[in-house]
Amino acid sequence: MSEIEYHVPEGFLFSTVEAAVKKPGRKDIAIIYSTVSAVASGVFTTNIAKAAPVLLDIEKIKGGKGRAIVANSGNANACTGARGLKDTQKMSYVASITLNCPDPEVFVASTGVIGTPLPIDRMFSKIRDAAETIGNSTLLDTARAIMTTDSFPKIASAQFNITGKTATVAAVAKGAGMICPNMATMLCFVLTDAAITKDALDQALICANDLTFNRITVDGDMSTNDTVLVLANGLAGNKPIHTGTKGFNIFKTVLTDVLMSLATMIVKDGEGATKVMKVLVKGTKTEHDASIFARAIANSLLVKTAVYGCDANWGRVIAAAGHAGVHFDPNAVDIFFGSVRVVKNGLTTNKDAEAAGQLKADTVTITINFRMGKASAQVLSCDLTEEYIKINAEYRT
Amino acid sequence: MSEIEYHVPEGFLFSTVEAAVKKPGRKDIAIIYSTVSAVASGVFTTNIAKAAPVLLDIEKIKGGKGRAIVANSGNANACTGARGLKDTQKMSYVASITLNCPDPEVFVASTGVIGTPLPIDRMFSKIRDAAETIGNSTLLDTARAIMTTDSFPKIASAQFNITGKTATVAAVAKGAGMICPNMATMLCFVLTDAAITKDALDQALICANDLTFNRITVDGDMSTNDTVLVLANGLAGNKPIHTGTKGFNIFKTVLTDVLMSLATMIVKDGEGATKVMKVLVKGTKTEHDASIFARAIANSLLVKTAVYGCDANWGRVIAAAGHAGVHFDPNAVDIFFGSVRVVKNGLTTNKDAEAAGQLKADTVTITINFRMGKASAQVLSCDLTEEYIKINAEYRT
Repeated sequence: MSEIEYHVPEGFLFSTVEAAVKKPGRKDIAIIYSTVSAVASGVFTTNIAKAAPVLLDIEKIKGGKGRAIVANSGNANACTGARGLKDTQKMSYVASITLNCPDPEVFVASTGVIGTPLPIDRMFSKIRDAAETIGNSTLLDTARAIMTTDSFPKIASAQFNITGKTATVAAVAKGAGMICPNMATMLCFVLTDAAITKDALDQALICANDLTFNRITVDGDMSTNDTVLVLANGLAGNKPIHTGTKGFNIFKTVLTDVLMSLATMIVKDGEGATKVMKVLVKGTKTEHDASIFARAIANSLLVKTAVYGCDANWGRVIAAAGHAGVHFDPNAVDIFFGSVRVVKNGLTTNKDAEAAGQLKADTVTITINFRMGKASAQVLSCDLTEEYIKINAEYRT
Repeated sequence: MSEIEYHVPEGFLFSTVEAAVKKPGRKDIAIIYSTVSAVASGVFTTNIAKAAPVLLDIEKIKGGKGRAIVANSGNANACTGARGLKDTQKMSYVASITLNCPDPEVFVASTGVIGTPLPIDRMFSKIRDAAETIGNSTLLDTARAIMTTDSFPKIASAQFNITGKTATVAAVAKGAGMICPNMATMLCFVLTDAAITKDALDQALICANDLTFNRITVDGDMSTNDTVLVLANGLAGNKPIHTGTKGFNIFKTVLTDVLMSLATMIVKDGEGATKVMKVLVKGTKTEHDASIFARAIANSLLVKTAVYGCDANWGRVIAAAGHAGVHFDPNAVDIFFGSVRVVKNGLTTNKDAEAAGQLKADTVTITINFRMGKASAQVLSCDLTEEYIKINAEYRT
């Protein structure tokens, strides 16, 4: 088995331990630690029922600084009320004491079952163990520790040159089910040794997130726990990156590439998915319209099951677009499955059989051109299979 | 096998024939005929990609009169462009000529595969055969002829007294997949011998439809063909029903009851469904808010699969409500599965195991009280199973 290759930015250490948060048998707590205080930025779920760690992080991120992230899988600490908030504060507290860093700079992330209180006593001592042995693990171990129904660890990295220095961006994510635009149900921790201002980091993250995690969907459900955190510790030694500079554009591009790699992995690993479904909408008046169409199509159960069954059922694509809420002329639409045009001016080209062959690929691209304008947008999704039902009918059993 | 019992209003005749629209082996064309001109009303899909028969009927319904409905299953005549419109006109034309009634009073409905032109030549002669032998079938035969993936025919009727006369309302519907609020993917034909004004019939239908077909969801997809048509031929001999009268309220209630029976059957027969899921939202400021929450929960794949798996996973209910777009306080919410309160003030009552027992019923009621006001709304849905995937992955094969 070939090892996954990745770069790790300077000054980050990792630790993973087993706390049997849900059940024993795997490492389910991870700590990420920066040896120096880092500039911190984050984006979070817009779900009204935000999990306790999300509520905590939203407050802390205002400080703009980060030293550590404590994460657990197996329990989301969501819908747990006042106790949940106390528990998430305890997770942060024990890490900050043991790592000897300010509590406001320690972020917390949890993923897993909703509504069950954390086994906080057990976790408390295990987080202390993890903090005491910081450096005991790799970034890949961290990726593994945050997995829930994920079938493989998700890690991506890139390097770039800036003011004569080499900087690294590396990130881990977990995803799988409960993924939807605005944003995927997921945790993602991005680490970089690039020096960058808070303002520039915020802007780059918002932009990269919009083009990546906000453009994927597995099942249209939105999590209570979605969190993307970035720590930039500056140890690459470059001159700090400011907005509006060439360096900023480079950083933003690299960050987008790294997040796009992870977003693609999340969709590939969609619960029960057998293939990636790329929905490319063209020819709308605005990019916003294009993304509305793309999401409606990407979230349609009938489109997703057709892709699963290798049925070039383009009628379902038009039907899904038809209730997206944006006007169009059904008689002007062109649709392609892969490279095969199945619809021209709203009418079949009688190539469904040929197009069905294209649906056997690992990645299926559905292109729909509304021919009303020049804007476009793409959403990544996956097919919907019996396995998704099985996983989610039996998740807690 | 016990026969289904129902009443048939005066003056309606039925005919069904086999035209092998999709494939041979069953009667797939039905004609409903009123011996006298009837007051006609209809509601139709709001999908932008409306099927040809829907476009035709929307024009014809403006005339306010109806004599006949020609319906076929196996092919939706949707996304078929100018040819589709011509074909649907031909269906209406041959029926009107053969039945000797005005073409503007003949409505057309089609359901089945999207994007394939009708085998109109074969259908043309078969519709003529059906019209020539009008009276050859029953209303139940009609219900059977419009089935697609439905597993049982859907028929309901009721009688009521009005100005000393007995009037009857009877209706048939087809549903199964591609069902969603605004409105179910379905055809429904309502026949009554009550005498009623056009205005009163329109108002009663809009109201009854909102409370029934617009409150069911199977998979969140909206069809290109949804059609509810009502013909009221007045042969019961009552004094015509006007809006704002006691008779109007009686009629509206009876119509709502009949449509609710059919809506419930459609959900019961949701593709692959093993149980009905009733989502009752209480304690919102407006009924509109309640219906938004109820639909978001009823459409959540994670809620539907949890119900399938008999998992009282109330966290998914809160998460679904949390992205419905209406504000609430997660710490004020109460949730019941059946009669078991699983959440009080946003926190678990530790009765998930007990609640799981309630999920084994044929009809599962999920009640969520937001405790912000006095409004409520209910949406009917069903669970999501492997069988749904199978049906929809293989639909055209």
